[in-house]
Amino acid sequence: MASAYEKLKTKLAQLVSLENIQALVEWDQQTQMSEGSGASRARHLEALSGLTHEIAVSDELGKLIEAAEVENAGAAYDSDEASMIRVAKRNYERARKLPTDLVSEMSRATSVGFEEWVKARANNDWKAFVPALKKIVELKQQEIECRGYKDHPYDALLDTYELGLTAAAVEGMFSELRKDLVPLVKAIGAKVDAVDDSCLHQPFDETDQRAFSELVITRMGYDFKRGRQDRAVHPFCTSFSQDDVRITTRFDPNWLNPAMFGTFHEAGHAMYEQGSAPALEGTVLNGGTSLGVHESQSRLWENVVGRSRQFWTYWYPRLQGVFIEQFKDVSLDAFYRAVNKVHPSFIRVEADEATYNLHIMVRFEIERDLFGGKLAVEDIPQIWNDKFNDYLGVVPPTDALGCLQDIHWSAGLLGYFPTYSMGNLLSVQLYDTALKQYPTIPDEIAVGEFGSLLRWMRENIHQYGQKYEPQELVKRATGEPMQSRSYMAYLKQKYGEIYNV
Amino acid sequence: MASAYEKLKTKLAQLVSLENIQALVEWDQQTQMSEGSGASRARHLEALSGLTHEIAVSDELGKLIEAAEVENAGAAYDSDEASMIRVAKRNYERARKLPTDLVSEMSRATSVGFEEWVKARANNDWKAFVPALKKIVELKQQEIECRGYKDHPYDALLDTYELGLTAAAVEGMFSELRKDLVPLVKAIGAKVDAVDDSCLHQPFDETDQRAFSELVITRMGYDFKRGRQDRAVHPFCTSFSQDDVRITTRFDPNWLNPAMFGTFHEAGHAMYEQGSAPALEGTVLNGGTSLGVHESQSRLWENVVGRSRQFWTYWYPRLQGVFIEQFKDVSLDAFYRAVNKVHPSFIRVEADEATYNLHIMVRFEIERDLFGGKLAVEDIPQIWNDKFNDYLGVVPPTDALGCLQDIHWSAGLLGYFPTYSMGNLLSVQLYDTALKQYPTIPDEIAVGEFGSLLRWMRENIHQYGQKYEPQELVKRATGEPMQSRSYMAYLKQKYGEIYNV
Repeated sequence: MASAYEKLKTKLAQLVSLENIQALVEWDQQTQMSEGSGASRARHLEALSGLTHEIAVSDELGKLIEAAEVENAGAAYDSDEASMIRVAKRNYERARKLPTDLVSEMSRATSVGFEEWVKARANNDWKAFVPALKKIVELKQQEIECRGYKDHPYDALLDTYELGLTAAAVEGMFSELRKDLVPLVKAIGAKVDAVDDSCLHQPFDETDQRAFSELVITRMGYDFKRGRQDRAVHPFCTSFSQDDVRITTRFDPNWLNPAMFGTFHEAGHAMYEQGSAPALEGTVLNGGTSLGVHESQSRLWENVVGRSRQFWTYWYPRLQGVFIEQFKDVSLDAFYRAVNKVHPSFIRVEADEATYNLHIMVRFEIERDLFGGKLAVEDIPQIWNDKFNDYLGVVPPTDALGCLQDIHWSAGLLGYFPTYSMGNLLSVQLYDTALKQYPTIPDEIAVGEFGSLLRWMRENIHQYGQKYEPQELVKRATGEPMQSRSYMAYLKQKYGEIYNV
Repeated sequence: MASAYEKLKTKLAQLVSLENIQALVEWDQQTQMSEGSGASRARHLEALSGLTHEIAVSDELGKLIEAAEVENAGAAYDSDEASMIRVAKRNYERARKLPTDLVSEMSRATSVGFEEWVKARANNDWKAFVPALKKIVELKQQEIECRGYKDHPYDALLDTYELGLTAAAVEGMFSELRKDLVPLVKAIGAKVDAVDDSCLHQPFDETDQRAFSELVITRMGYDFKRGRQDRAVHPFCTSFSQDDVRITTRFDPNWLNPAMFGTFHEAGHAMYEQGSAPALEGTVLNGGTSLGVHESQSRLWENVVGRSRQFWTYWYPRLQGVFIEQFKDVSLDAFYRAVNKVHPSFIRVEADEATYNLHIMVRFEIERDLFGGKLAVEDIPQIWNDKFNDYLGVVPPTDALGCLQDIHWSAGLLGYFPTYSMGNLLSVQLYDTALKQYPTIPDEIAVGEFGSLLRWMRENIHQYGQKYEPQELVKRATGEPMQSRSYMAYLKQKYGEIYNV
């Protein structure tokens, strides 16, 4: 006779497999599918997600969880058994909170929202987008009521993307940061021409870009035997198991950054997914624990490692060997400064390490006030521009380059942006902790080795999969909650030196 | 209120989507997946096929079919409604005939069978394969009892792959053929050196091979906007909807035939799948009606068209333009003869148009006698070699090159081989009928046009999808049952001229 736990595990394995398959079907859609196959693909995804949802909220699953819980009442908190039951129960309860009607209505509202947003951005017309966004916000308010919250309504949305995250916590993180970051960025803004990054804007052969980036990430620890890289319009990382983690990239024939740093970034996500403990494969505990922790891994390899002086000490001569003409007159120092150029700008996805969090701050404050009843959808453009002026010292000339730039709101992704900043902060907090255990990490990086850094991440983050909630994991790994002190010190030290501020 | 028919259609659409997704997951496995991802992929496929099977045999589906049948009792036989209900009922009844235990046991037996076959072939040791094949045959006998049959036990297996096909029908088709084909092949066998195909065995750049083949199939009518071509070790065609039909090929850097004729062949399958009536998309009626009819389409474009003199009249100068050095001293006539070289050999997959059916005849007679109780697994090698000597005038020097060459039996594919011959016969029977309506087809082909031929296939075969059973479809399209007369006349005319026999 199978134990209650075994029965639950079997059922969950089915559910996980269906979710994995859905990710594969979506990967195919983004990377392989031909243009004429869209309608039938929508049919496939609808059938699959419907079936997955049915199982995820089924009474049968609820009963299996209950029985396994009783049977394993004595299991240690961090045993695989207790963790699996705990996470399954949490997922189950969350899935059952939303009525199917609300999910369908949101799906329709975001379909409309996306179309309206595309048009509004093209026409630089915020007013045209207002009705669709109002509808989405209204449905999100209903969702908030269904999910429940303690302090602030916005907490319910934050918690969807980052378990346990609250508006108060985000405010805490940003208020510390704001104090030092705004003056730093303004000081750099005054010397923006001190760094010349024109060497990155030259013709670069796509095959060579690809070969170089793939060589680097292989050395970092991305395992191509358990994954692959493809081209996609919007790069992403996806996984169907810890043994099948795929990344995508896009190439700009006249700009080195998108493919190169993009590949480091996605490889960071991918190494996290490839690093769950083998025993977790195929279970609800496999994979990354949250968007914020995931982003800490991508930012770590993209920025903390991939934009460091040590890194380029080893790799720049090799890059010069690939792009001989382009870099023959560019020194290591000039190249290092180029890849770290800071320029306060309007567009989040083009933002550098120093200004990125200010972009997020603007969005967070707007979203929080929207759900706190302090701000109307109509008033967003004015507030947006005011905040940009305050934090970055620049004002977007149009709404298309301002509050209409991102897809997120049209897709109903409200409460999502703060996870990007969490990623930035955590990338340095984790790196600094790893340094304490392995002080030779920078020296290793300077000779093209990443073993100790990856080992620390494997041991302290990756192996646990989803066993621990994000803030619990950070506490265990670094001995303290998420903080912005490390990140701010990192920025000050790095950019103080580069810009002499 | 949705009608009973609408309810059934919705349920079937879900089932069809799951089957489509399974095909996509398998396509990915064959073409994209990395080597280290195999174990998790097996888990995905197990979950998906389990769920699909559950729905396919569910009481719920049975009740929906019954209700729709009552509601549509007056619908015309060939209406979409009546056809969908009829096909759904047939699939349902067939799916419910096999007990789950038998399916699982067969799955285990073929896993073992495959491994034993690989070893036995490598060691040229039929005896080592006997126990595994005996087990498979024994389970197939149980399957036959579950499925039922009228005249010959083997009929139950034939019917699995080609609805309504019987041993008697195959015997009829082969006895006609044997009479004329065996002497023809022996006459050609005596003059095998009359054709030199060494021009096909030269170095050919893969990119050029690919570009040329894809140009040709685009002109034939394969729509790349609703499909794509990838490399695979064992080429195949698969589809996830009529708007997403993908083909695969393999390249031999020193032999032109595999990729070129292989691509024509798979494109033939693919055009059939792309050609179902749009109203059938996403329903149980979408796609090809049987393996045999499918093979008629692939063989049509590969051989009847792709190895014809008219075809190369137009395309050979273009091929010469791609492979300038290779063909500069080869005349059109020499090239045409080269791609039609006949040489009686041991290996089915390398067989030419003239000898191919003799390979199938050997396998059919052995399978039939195996299930008719006239032949023991142990005795297959001797019988195999005797028949090869009788029909082809050659005897395989080893069992590895004889009865151990094909994967089919180890995979439980018994009753499958005759569909290959059906495809050959039908390719010419259909082509001849098309010629009656469009006598200019050969002239069109000679100027690189395929419109009338494709139109005839679309109108008489493709558009119906699975609405008609294979033999019913052939009768409707050609006015008579499947026959071997046309094919034999085609071979005699074509090879009589080439070999002067």
